[in-house]
Amino acid sequence: MNDTERHIASAFDRDLEGIQAQIMKMGGLVEQAIMGAAVSLETRDDELATKVRENDRAIDKMEELLNEEAARVIALRAPTASDLRIVLSVMRMSANLERIGDLSKNMAKRTTVLVQMQPIGSTASSLRRMAREVELMLKDALDAYIQRDAALAQDVIERDADVDQMYNTLFREFLTFMLEDPRNITACMHLHFIAKNIERMGDHVTSICEQVVFLTTGQLPEETRAKLDNTSTDMGPRPDLVKDEG
Amino acid sequence: MNDTERHIASAFDRDLEGIQAQIMKMGGLVEQAIMGAAVSLETRDDELATKVRENDRAIDKMEELLNEEAARVIALRAPTASDLRIVLSVMRMSANLERIGDLSKNMAKRTTVLVQMQPIGSTASSLRRMAREVELMLKDALDAYIQRDAALAQDVIERDADVDQMYNTLFREFLTFMLEDPRNITACMHLHFIAKNIERMGDHVTSICEQVVFLTTGQLPEETRAKLDNTSTDMGPRPDLVKDEG
Repeated sequence: MNDTERHIASAFDRDLEGIQAQIMKMGGLVEQAIMGAAVSLETRDDELATKVRENDRAIDKMEELLNEEAARVIALRAPTASDLRIVLSVMRMSANLERIGDLSKNMAKRTTVLVQMQPIGSTASSLRRMAREVELMLKDALDAYIQRDAALAQDVIERDADVDQMYNTLFREFLTFMLEDPRNITACMHLHFIAKNIERMGDHVTSICEQVVFLTTGQLPEETRAKLDNTSTDMGPRPDLVKDEG
Repeated sequence: MNDTERHIASAFDRDLEGIQAQIMKMGGLVEQAIMGAAVSLETRDDELATKVRENDRAIDKMEELLNEEAARVIALRAPTASDLRIVLSVMRMSANLERIGDLSKNMAKRTTVLVQMQPIGSTASSLRRMAREVELMLKDALDAYIQRDAALAQDVIERDADVDQMYNTLFREFLTFMLEDPRNITACMHLHFIAKNIERMGDHVTSICEQVVFLTTGQLPEETRAKLDNTSTDMGPRPDLVKDEG
């Protein structure tokens, strides 16, 4: 490596550090959005729900800036294959974060509707616990990214099964409430969408962790490949197992 | 412009043409996925549904290749600001297409579950019509992109209101079927998710059109800005108006 290359390399590292700092800041905002949405639902706090919806613009803006910055770095530094992989993975992670933000916003919108209806048992508390689980997963996923800790990322991926389990339990609860009293149907449909949204947040966190494993080891996690195979073939008549993607 | 610059410019144009050809091919596959999923639901054709699910891997793969190719072009050609904007918009469009593909796959998964249950009135036909509308919108969106036709893109954006209207009508139908007979609830919940998925496909097509308008005119479409304002404030007690994003 000659002096010029070394100079470019350290400039790239500095750029990358800047981008990573932005990702962490964005991740913090998204964590807040998840919990804000979940708590506003549990405490029936429409004001908090409104705040979550408004704050989503800041998250969207951050993704936009991150993408522009990443493109600028690629154009300016023409990174090597492995450095390019890092920048692309940051862009993917920011897309995942932005989608978790959108799902939180949507949850907050439904909260505004739900506060005008009768509560459905203690399902709002179950949903808050489920959201809390996802928030902790996200926190660990971001830590795993910064520390390039593939084992922690793999651990988070495995915890997503708990979130799926919580979703399945809630799905059955909503069904019971609807069968019990048809007046519960509208509220249950909203709550069901919220449960599904949280479950999808977990999938996005998993996707962030897959990027971490890929960056650290150069391979996709075992678990993921197994899961990809499962979802395309193992489709019995269990409606609660249908996974939403995207 | 000197000879070297002209040489680089035309190399960029060639690269861009290659990327655009890939986007159109990917768009074609996604159109097929939408209709495959919708037709398999209407005709209760589990074999077709399975094919749609399998074909989604090809769509995912194309997005991956497109992103790599786009990054390679940015690194190699260091495009100017406006050319960079084109490449970034292609990356965004491919993300939208990939998500429409995922939503189609999910629809196909639910079809596999639904063929084992009683049909719910003629809702499967309504869903197929709704999907057909979205497919036509996507076709026009891709045409608008290739021809840099902002007026056509704007037209497609406006047609998304029809899709939203179809969703609202279906939402009320599902509610009626559930109230009528609780044995319809499980099937209706799946069909409701499918309707929501098609409505979200329409949003992704709208997002593609916004890229086209932005690329062509340098501005976001009027309609979009108005809509962004609406969704954050106009939230009455009408549950059917809650929009899912992401």
